[in-house]
Amino acid sequence: MRVGIVGLGAMGLPMAANLVKAGHEVAGFDLKPQAMTAFAQAGGIAASSAADAAKGAEILILMVVNGDQADAVLFGEAGVAEALAPGAVVIASCTQPPAQAAELAAKLAERQLRMLDAPVSGGVVGAEAASLTIMCGGPAAVFDAVEPLLRNMGRNIFHVGEAHGSGSTAKLINQLLCGVHIAAAAEAMNVAERAGVSLKAIHDIISVSAGNSWMWGDRGPRMMQDDPEVTSAVDIFVKDLGIVLDHGRKARQGLPLAAVAHQMFLAAAGLGHGADDDSQVIKAYRALNGGKDKNNP
Amino acid sequence: MRVGIVGLGAMGLPMAANLVKAGHEVAGFDLKPQAMTAFAQAGGIAASSAADAAKGAEILILMVVNGDQADAVLFGEAGVAEALAPGAVVIASCTQPPAQAAELAAKLAERQLRMLDAPVSGGVVGAEAASLTIMCGGPAAVFDAVEPLLRNMGRNIFHVGEAHGSGSTAKLINQLLCGVHIAAAAEAMNVAERAGVSLKAIHDIISVSAGNSWMWGDRGPRMMQDDPEVTSAVDIFVKDLGIVLDHGRKARQGLPLAAVAHQMFLAAAGLGHGADDDSQVIKAYRALNGGKDKNNP
Repeated sequence: MRVGIVGLGAMGLPMAANLVKAGHEVAGFDLKPQAMTAFAQAGGIAASSAADAAKGAEILILMVVNGDQADAVLFGEAGVAEALAPGAVVIASCTQPPAQAAELAAKLAERQLRMLDAPVSGGVVGAEAASLTIMCGGPAAVFDAVEPLLRNMGRNIFHVGEAHGSGSTAKLINQLLCGVHIAAAAEAMNVAERAGVSLKAIHDIISVSAGNSWMWGDRGPRMMQDDPEVTSAVDIFVKDLGIVLDHGRKARQGLPLAAVAHQMFLAAAGLGHGADDDSQVIKAYRALNGGKDKNNP
Repeated sequence: MRVGIVGLGAMGLPMAANLVKAGHEVAGFDLKPQAMTAFAQAGGIAASSAADAAKGAEILILMVVNGDQADAVLFGEAGVAEALAPGAVVIASCTQPPAQAAELAAKLAERQLRMLDAPVSGGVVGAEAASLTIMCGGPAAVFDAVEPLLRNMGRNIFHVGEAHGSGSTAKLINQLLCGVHIAAAAEAMNVAERAGVSLKAIHDIISVSAGNSWMWGDRGPRMMQDDPEVTSAVDIFVKDLGIVLDHGRKARQGLPLAAVAHQMFLAAAGLGHGADDDSQVIKAYRALNGGKDKNNP
């Protein structure tokens, strides 16, 4: 099967490479020359443009940054929608608000193109290991048609619902929980710091208690470091909780915990930690309350 | 070893029974006659008063409701502190603010009595299975002296720190995270409800994603039920997040996520759900935002 992919970044490149490995003919395009070189080395067909990647493809994967970029690639000067054959399926794997995913599907339908709303979760590690979670919204027929392809890139493939946007809703809910849980972990750690109790002891205890979360296990250890490796930046949650709250504004839905968590990530970014690991949202709590002491230097 | 225990409620009774099973001579007291009957059936020595349970005990376990009750039992008319021999250890396993645990230890020290601040986590299930988490604050010598006894009641026994109150700080941090995570789960589920996305699908997805938490796994399924079994009531989190925020007031520490989560539990209680399962905090979100629809009736 001929597959096109636009967007060969940190996630898109390993996803495309896994499709090549699975035996697909994959034509890819990215604006960055080094991404194109790496893609060709992985056995992909280096397309000369986004439209060239789309030409002749039964399935086109969009692994661009957000919904605005997806719209621009499809309907802007790049002319990707025009290059696709009628009946082709666009897999929109960028992170975007549910309403934008639904609008994109409607615009594609006007040109007899089908779409699957299919944001992913699992990061670069999951993209490389083909263990991504892929949350799909769209008609069952479209999902069924592309599911085998998705299984070459991810381990947990979910058909959330028939509506375009329901995949993006699932992703948004995951981001809401991730953001609140990281900030809650920082709030909890900051209580220990102020009380002079060892963060290490607290981390061990909570890890076997009902207060545990995936984020506590993953981000907690980096909260105890002053300048940890950046696995995902504070600015990513400034953006992602922003998408959550934009959805709430549009839907007229109050999301009090997400709103407060967003404030803490914004404050951390304002304190100069936007490019630091998102565990460093704890520095916003320290700015607010103090914290470092002789037990937790 | 002769052990006394005051407070044979849903947690205290199985904890005492596990000590009897482990071969200890256990004298217990509770104000409720049916608790005394059950304790005697489990092989315990039914004491005629709290002071009688304490008399001759090397170790006295207080499994009362809170720090005020612990103080009243020890220093009020019950006269328990006077009944204990010098050097005896009081294990204060009630949930109380860290500062109150430290005050209790200071008052006991004036009478040559030692204390371990040792709140527990794991609920009735953990108490029955002797799998409780016990978070201990106090001098290492006191901890070492009673650790074997604690291992008859719990699986995860932690010495958090030398200071009385550090055990209670760990418990408080666990409750902070539990309360925020339950409310966050309800906030997330309510997004799915409003968007018309299946809660069942969302629960499956998040359970294998980075947004997962222990509370999501445990309380999530009951959020999808209208009148689930009560494993822990909304009012318990009204109380426990109240202790968390009282600590913040005393310590002059802002806890924005805990404060917002507390508001949602308060609202749920105000809507008449105080005695319902704490998963029903989702009803406060529904009151705020709506939610039930054709996909989630």
